[in-house]
Amino acid sequence: MAETADLVEREIDRLIAPSDLAEGKLIDAMRYGSLGGGKRLRPFLVMSSADLFGVNPSCSVRVAAAVELVHCYSLIHDDLPAMDDGMLRRGRPTVHRQFDEATAILAGDGLLTFAFEILAEPDTHEDPNVRCQLVTALAKAAGPHGMVGGQMLDLIAEHETFDLGTTTRLQRMKTGDMIAVSAEAGGILGKGAPAQRHALRAYAHDLGLAFQIVDDLLDVEGTEQETGKTVGRDAAAGKATFVSILGRDRARIQAETLAAQAKAHLDIFDGRADMLKAVADFVVARRA
Amino acid sequence: MAETADLVEREIDRLIAPSDLAEGKLIDAMRYGSLGGGKRLRPFLVMSSADLFGVNPSCSVRVAAAVELVHCYSLIHDDLPAMDDGMLRRGRPTVHRQFDEATAILAGDGLLTFAFEILAEPDTHEDPNVRCQLVTALAKAAGPHGMVGGQMLDLIAEHETFDLGTTTRLQRMKTGDMIAVSAEAGGILGKGAPAQRHALRAYAHDLGLAFQIVDDLLDVEGTEQETGKTVGRDAAAGKATFVSILGRDRARIQAETLAAQAKAHLDIFDGRADMLKAVADFVVARRA
Repeated sequence: MAETADLVEREIDRLIAPSDLAEGKLIDAMRYGSLGGGKRLRPFLVMSSADLFGVNPSCSVRVAAAVELVHCYSLIHDDLPAMDDGMLRRGRPTVHRQFDEATAILAGDGLLTFAFEILAEPDTHEDPNVRCQLVTALAKAAGPHGMVGGQMLDLIAEHETFDLGTTTRLQRMKTGDMIAVSAEAGGILGKGAPAQRHALRAYAHDLGLAFQIVDDLLDVEGTEQETGKTVGRDAAAGKATFVSILGRDRARIQAETLAAQAKAHLDIFDGRADMLKAVADFVVARRA
Repeated sequence: MAETADLVEREIDRLIAPSDLAEGKLIDAMRYGSLGGGKRLRPFLVMSSADLFGVNPSCSVRVAAAVELVHCYSLIHDDLPAMDDGMLRRGRPTVHRQFDEATAILAGDGLLTFAFEILAEPDTHEDPNVRCQLVTALAKAAGPHGMVGGQMLDLIAEHETFDLGTTTRLQRMKTGDMIAVSAEAGGILGKGAPAQRHALRAYAHDLGLAFQIVDDLLDVEGTEQETGKTVGRDAAAGKATFVSILGRDRARIQAETLAAQAKAHLDIFDGRADMLKAVADFVVARRA
């Protein structure tokens, strides 16, 4: 994973070059919000799943970067004072604290827009059909019926008590869909057979839920130093999470069950999907 | 123009259907921020330029709607308290005043993301190359080197005094690029010859500047009732505008010159571009 993180870091650094122009502050904020951090889980999923189909890494790294830019935009906007009002992200001040609120809003907007520009350009793949499919899949995962809708539900969760069904739907939208599209992107790039794409989606769906349950556990059990972000926010905001609904022990068992289930979906790739299987183990074992 | 406005209104109403789900508030805010208003100048440019090439309106109206959604997202974010802190838009409370700030941020994000989903889908055009070109062109016009960059410059203009060159660049990025891509989109949809696409871009470039100069004039001369939005904000913020740099009389002459120049670019279409020529006259004569 460190290798992918390094590749994606350099790709983002190349794609968003610093600017001497008057609006350079915007570019600085976009770089600050997207470079130097994070597990780069989504890029790893993109590149590992593309690798199953023998896709050239110089091609999948662009898609990995685009997906990561959309993830980073969502973190910048989620951290805004009107949203979660986050102080710390990846161990550093959040973008609106390092720059200012207006710049953070625009940096998020810029990253989101630029991600679609990257995907649609011929450098990403020679087949325009593949590029269109990537744009559609990412827009669906990030849009009002995906991540943005999930974020809206998350805000509503501060005032309403959701049951397990709605909480599961919230998490599928808020983080699951972006994780699912990361794994699916490899299948799109590699023009995988429907059964293969389906297996990747099913894997990523289970993985995304496991990831979120562990996130909820870390929000309760983790320290700020370990996670690099403010912890205990869900409980403070009175939000229903998997942990508040299931309890810590059952939540952990559920995460482990989902990870095992995720790995089982990959059996159709024989032994070639070991990297993706290892990610499932990592997601459950992680402390940050 | 009223006919196009009507078609686009119905298309947006169809594309963003109300939702009974828990996150329905997000959809409501997206509808509030995009339905029921505006001159729909950009959709008119998309549809009129597409019409030059005989493009089916059922196809160009989708692209017109996508461009308008990006325009509406930018208005919602520009009106946020951390940005221009607008109270009134199209004669109604701005989105963050009607809903709340977090919902306004997400509604803007949702509209932007959804616009790219619309463009990339097969319904927009059978040729995926055309769809990719539309996504690329819109992303460039709306991104950090277009509208978002222009908005950043606009914020900086509150503290720094820009000269005519930087002010022109600011306006080209902030509003000009989106107007240019609207006219260009018709050329992309209609697979126009390079000379035809170039003429449309040149037309829209001049039109965009004329539009912005008149906007600056209305901010000084117009009333809130006429324009449906808060006026006098640029002067209050101490921003350099075409009017503050050129003076009112020279600014008006400049707008008229640009409109005449814009129309001249369309001569290669013989008499078929009369609609687009009429828009140039409208832009200069408008009171809102």
